[in-house]
Amino acid sequence: MVASSQVRASRRWDETVVERDRRLAAGARYARGKEVAAADVRGLLEAVIMPGDRVCLEGDNQKQADFLAGCLATVDPGKVRDLHIVQSGLVLAEHLDLFETGIARKLDFSYSGPQGGALARALAAGKIELGAIHTYIELFSRYFVDLTPNVALTVARAADRDGNLYMGPNTEDSPVVIEATAFKQGIVIAQVNEIVDKVPRVDIPGDRIDFIVRSPSPFYLEPLFTRDPAQITETQILSAMIAIRGIYEPYGITRLNHGIGFNTAAIELILPTYAQKLGLKGRIATHFALNPHPTLIPAIESGWVRQVHSFGSEVGMDAYMRARPDIFFTGRDGSMGSNRMFCQAAGLYATDMFIGSTLQIDLQGNSSTVTRDRIAGFGGAPNMGSDPHGRRHASEAWMKAGREAGGAGLPRGRKLVVQIVESFADKMAPAFVEKLDCLELAETLGLALPPVMIYGGDVTHIVTEEGVANLLLCRNAAEREQAIRGIAGYTEVGRGRDRAMVEALRARKAIQRPEDLGIDLLDANRNLLAARSVKDLMRWSGNLYEPPAKFRNW
Amino acid sequence: MVASSQVRASRRWDETVVERDRRLAAGARYARGKEVAAADVRGLLEAVIMPGDRVCLEGDNQKQADFLAGCLATVDPGKVRDLHIVQSGLVLAEHLDLFETGIARKLDFSYSGPQGGALARALAAGKIELGAIHTYIELFSRYFVDLTPNVALTVARAADRDGNLYMGPNTEDSPVVIEATAFKQGIVIAQVNEIVDKVPRVDIPGDRIDFIVRSPSPFYLEPLFTRDPAQITETQILSAMIAIRGIYEPYGITRLNHGIGFNTAAIELILPTYAQKLGLKGRIATHFALNPHPTLIPAIESGWVRQVHSFGSEVGMDAYMRARPDIFFTGRDGSMGSNRMFCQAAGLYATDMFIGSTLQIDLQGNSSTVTRDRIAGFGGAPNMGSDPHGRRHASEAWMKAGREAGGAGLPRGRKLVVQIVESFADKMAPAFVEKLDCLELAETLGLALPPVMIYGGDVTHIVTEEGVANLLLCRNAAEREQAIRGIAGYTEVGRGRDRAMVEALRARKAIQRPEDLGIDLLDANRNLLAARSVKDLMRWSGNLYEPPAKFRNW
Repeated sequence: MVASSQVRASRRWDETVVERDRRLAAGARYARGKEVAAADVRGLLEAVIMPGDRVCLEGDNQKQADFLAGCLATVDPGKVRDLHIVQSGLVLAEHLDLFETGIARKLDFSYSGPQGGALARALAAGKIELGAIHTYIELFSRYFVDLTPNVALTVARAADRDGNLYMGPNTEDSPVVIEATAFKQGIVIAQVNEIVDKVPRVDIPGDRIDFIVRSPSPFYLEPLFTRDPAQITETQILSAMIAIRGIYEPYGITRLNHGIGFNTAAIELILPTYAQKLGLKGRIATHFALNPHPTLIPAIESGWVRQVHSFGSEVGMDAYMRARPDIFFTGRDGSMGSNRMFCQAAGLYATDMFIGSTLQIDLQGNSSTVTRDRIAGFGGAPNMGSDPHGRRHASEAWMKAGREAGGAGLPRGRKLVVQIVESFADKMAPAFVEKLDCLELAETLGLALPPVMIYGGDVTHIVTEEGVANLLLCRNAAEREQAIRGIAGYTEVGRGRDRAMVEALRARKAIQRPEDLGIDLLDANRNLLAARSVKDLMRWSGNLYEPPAKFRNW
Repeated sequence: MVASSQVRASRRWDETVVERDRRLAAGARYARGKEVAAADVRGLLEAVIMPGDRVCLEGDNQKQADFLAGCLATVDPGKVRDLHIVQSGLVLAEHLDLFETGIARKLDFSYSGPQGGALARALAAGKIELGAIHTYIELFSRYFVDLTPNVALTVARAADRDGNLYMGPNTEDSPVVIEATAFKQGIVIAQVNEIVDKVPRVDIPGDRIDFIVRSPSPFYLEPLFTRDPAQITETQILSAMIAIRGIYEPYGITRLNHGIGFNTAAIELILPTYAQKLGLKGRIATHFALNPHPTLIPAIESGWVRQVHSFGSEVGMDAYMRARPDIFFTGRDGSMGSNRMFCQAAGLYATDMFIGSTLQIDLQGNSSTVTRDRIAGFGGAPNMGSDPHGRRHASEAWMKAGREAGGAGLPRGRKLVVQIVESFADKMAPAFVEKLDCLELAETLGLALPPVMIYGGDVTHIVTEEGVANLLLCRNAAEREQAIRGIAGYTEVGRGRDRAMVEALRARKAIQRPEDLGIDLLDANRNLLAARSVKDLMRWSGNLYEPPAKFRNW
């Protein structure tokens, strides 16, 4: 045996605690108790953040620590520099400003949305050292292993003077960000809309929070999951009908996630009409891992939906959810509670289907939302759009998909991963391409991995207005390619199909057209939508839904 | 548009709230504030649990709500019956008693450990309707979708009178169990070792807790992750050397999980000796998703380990962890904090390798710990022992494995999933078999899925004392089978090898023997262990580690 006393390095084992205490003391100069005045935040940040720190400046899918973001962008780059930003959403202009001034240098993130274009330019200009574009739960997981934040800048609706935080419906990423940071001796600062004597409920215990600051204005929330029914086209309605007849019904999908977009909004809006007529109520779409989409209101009100767990919230839905505790997860204060980590896990392991949209699909079924000039990130799609090999519970849908996938091994199920697109997207850009743009981008930027959203091997079905391709029933790469071409419409990829092979695939139901599914094209019109406008959604909700201004035209 | 007022069912939307309030009122008769006397718990349970309820009677991997389990076993089956038990660990005798008396009928779980035999008998006798044997994170995920508990019986070290709970190192499953239950209008009851004026830290906010009861004795903790170095054999040391030379070193594995068992304990104990001599310090085994294994102490003390996040705790390790905050995640009170949901996510998405043991491996590499007469469950192995297709960050280890796996598609990495076994296990049972016992059991019990722990398609390497098989380098099922036979020793499977094919596989390093790896068999002796006894571990820890009585022979 090696002598323990000899080998053991004579070192301290609480350097992180000493360092935290030092930072807390430096920060305390700006605080009264845990409270810091808005005007002192810049000083606080300069006192507690060190060069090279990993910082999570909470930018969630929806909720933004915007005041703290603005403050961080104004710190002296001589004092605070070369930060490694580790946060899921990089969606505010201030998030990118940090890299312009040298305050930040390295980036690991998940989603950039509106900053996708600016991010692509900053990367091309060499201003950002990119770690990886993660799916949410992957980035959160790394918070506990090799990307633990030194400082977390979080955001809540209210705090009490002990630092107990109330997030209400927008709990989102905060629990995981704060737990990883606080338990590894990091510093946690929260901007809050108000400081109160007693918070309505405690989402985060105060002993995990070091400083609180009342922001001059309420935090910014992005209404990311609202789709105006008025914008839904007849093509999208047709695709929605194909999805229900071709997938939801035969597999009996009860537990699922819907991606963001008009295609899945259309599905939500024809559940109480089209699917109702098919007698599917109670047999499909009962349990969701889903943000509170306003377009789900008619299905909820019609008694289709039994339970919804959410990643985050949605602007305008608070009062509606508060009035529907039988459906949504709600805290003891009566308001909804979300949790992106838990809901992403639910989307991975506890649902039978993910259905979502994308910008580009190639001949192997790989998809990406990254184009030459935009790096939008993927959010939850890579996670929920993958087959979890660790799953060990059976369901009819999962077992049926597993049987179709065949293979010589042991009996096993398969997650249904569905991509739903129109053959031509905005500005007539084809959804089907020979080569994904993201491959070229990966070469240009020298990325280790091309930013593929969902790999073709995980995709089971692709739906367009022309039909549904069941890739599980394809026995080789050539069949797979023809199944994809066979529903790719008048895109170049679609026109390049081998007609005989496509018809053979159709004969064995690897491709199904509307007529094969008993769909009358004449039915695919806007009368099928349970709500045809945002105002309709409001009415369905008994006026509990309060649409954000940008969706009101009245 | 369908008229919303017409379609909308005239129903209440807060039935779950009304029902919760009714139950709380019924339970309040047994409580003063939130406090319930131990003698009144039976009455409380009969008041708040309804027939057919889904109940999580917290049984974690280690921490047990044993007092509440005992109380539930004594309720009147005329009042409380047909429960659907949804909990990760079914490890106490009382857990099974529930099914004998009809109090419980249906079961969804993850791990049964010491009750594996009794569970198999109860299933065979038709006393339990089995849902599924999940991996932890999968069961937790279903808590938010279709297995939400109506009642959670949880356990903590201390509570204050508002119900704020302190779990200290054994936070484990509680946060996810309680969040799912409390936010879906369920009832949460906590047994605690003591009721105090102020808890050292808040692990669970009190507004999620309905009733607290001081248990007559502290909750039971199972020292599940302690392996006595005195029991480690030279065969296991040899396998450990093979694993380090054959996998850790060439792939440069820094982020990893070790399963439970003597094989991985041996690896931990030769890091500061064998791996040190190889110059691997800082290049392998730096970041762990791992319970606080006592056998990791010498590696920690020697400066090998940078960070450990834990699923749960381990008996006797509290003081040691408290003194090592630079390594472990610790709360503001100074004691460690664990979280099984977060750590399982970390094990899935943020590590490059899972290495663990099993009881049986078949010719395709499928493994199971389920045998004809024992259903032990799998715990975290199916999750961590799977390749997460949603992962989007690169690392050297992951990319190297991906290159070896080859394939025609886009560049992509691969999780390393390693099974390490001795060719013959206890009582000379062969680890390698033509057919897994669990297949027969699945037929007998009519299970939809055979309880496979890790599917062969996810396994990348198998290590025995005879060598390491790299399944990534096998190009077809026949090669794969021979690679497995080629390291299966003198088992029947091993003796059935095709010698020429095995040598061919060896020539291209799909099989590597100790001599191929520069390992001198004479070095494989117990002198290589940094600690050879539990007492040695204690000394390494500066006497901070306090071994449980069953591991003390002095």
